[in-house]
Amino acid sequence: MTEATFSAAERDSFYRLVAARRDVRHFVPGSTVDETTLMRLLQAAHDGPSVGLMQPWRFIRIADVGLRERLLEQVEAERQRTADALGERRDEFLRLKVEGLRDCAVLLAAVLAPDDGTVFGRRTLGPEMALASLACAIQNLWLAARVEQLGMGWVSMFEPAAIDALLGVPPGGRTMGLLCLGPAQHFHDAPLLEIEGWRQRRPLSELVSTDGWREETSPR
Amino acid sequence: MTEATFSAAERDSFYRLVAARRDVRHFVPGSTVDETTLMRLLQAAHDGPSVGLMQPWRFIRIADVGLRERLLEQVEAERQRTADALGERRDEFLRLKVEGLRDCAVLLAAVLAPDDGTVFGRRTLGPEMALASLACAIQNLWLAARVEQLGMGWVSMFEPAAIDALLGVPPGGRTMGLLCLGPAQHFHDAPLLEIEGWRQRRPLSELVSTDGWREETSPR
Repeated sequence: MTEATFSAAERDSFYRLVAARRDVRHFVPGSTVDETTLMRLLQAAHDGPSVGLMQPWRFIRIADVGLRERLLEQVEAERQRTADALGERRDEFLRLKVEGLRDCAVLLAAVLAPDDGTVFGRRTLGPEMALASLACAIQNLWLAARVEQLGMGWVSMFEPAAIDALLGVPPGGRTMGLLCLGPAQHFHDAPLLEIEGWRQRRPLSELVSTDGWREETSPR
Repeated sequence: MTEATFSAAERDSFYRLVAARRDVRHFVPGSTVDETTLMRLLQAAHDGPSVGLMQPWRFIRIADVGLRERLLEQVEAERQRTADALGERRDEFLRLKVEGLRDCAVLLAAVLAPDDGTVFGRRTLGPEMALASLACAIQNLWLAARVEQLGMGWVSMFEPAAIDALLGVPPGGRTMGLLCLGPAQHFHDAPLLEIEGWRQRRPLSELVSTDGWREETSPR
């Protein structure tokens, strides 16, 4: 067994990658991602950790143009419902670009598979740990996309039952994300929501404590 | 705005990192992680994506030796309950090394903060997207640890209410992981559960389909 080691330069490169990753919503229309690259991205997701090795992630590639259109309709409908739910920030929200389903080169549905009964590590946190495993896989994919100079956006603005019906996801399964993937128009230096004045990030120091929960003085 | 770019070598290094990351349970007793390194790891977590920029992650460092001991007691109790729940694989399970709480240099609790009411991107999948954001942060931390030549193990074998009580997590918050972190005895080439014959990984090809869910012929 020869263990992989990483140089200081590789370490720095990784941190640069983490900092450069963004939720991308502006894609280059008409662009593509070649099959070999897409498979590398999916393999990175598949190399993610999973509780009890259950690998609960399923990825559905949306190739059919009509299907993409129907998914987009669902997202657009939910965008309107979200706007309505936001009250006084409704109009501000509607001005934001919140998804890139139409222009992204590749659209993937990230689906949580029906529970396979895995007990290891999830007797008490069953649904949570399955979902956490899927999320870790998606984060791998996200970073992989960025290192390949591709953007990704995780869209969760939809009624999951409607998406599941469109994709034929069986009972117990659930679509957790529509992943927009492809050449990006740009990678911003900061989260788009921050740039657009929707919300600001908090400093790390507020979110770390020692030996117990620290009362939050400024919840946002 | 100068956009970060990555070379082919950096890309390959990232994929090597993803493949080399393991859930580590064998740590070097008496080892330490210096403060600067730990802060880099936490910053990587904090640079993770979050739905609506809600940043729902909180990290509690366990410095008190007695508190670590009480957390370990909870994990050990749940290990026994898990064994009982496993039926015929009970004894096989009890032979596995499933956590490294005692020997890891640093023990962190990864806590999901009480819901802050964020609507953006989570009107329909509220609890799910908050948890997914926390999981993405943890995956960043996991990869960062590996690139620093440190092991990490995500322990979810506990009764969350009991851990929350020990840490003073307020109602609505929930501890989702005890993260064992530090110099590892070794990094295996494959998941420990696979090496020990507990369960095998599935090929990626079984988990990817096009335009709809594919019936699973061999659920495991």
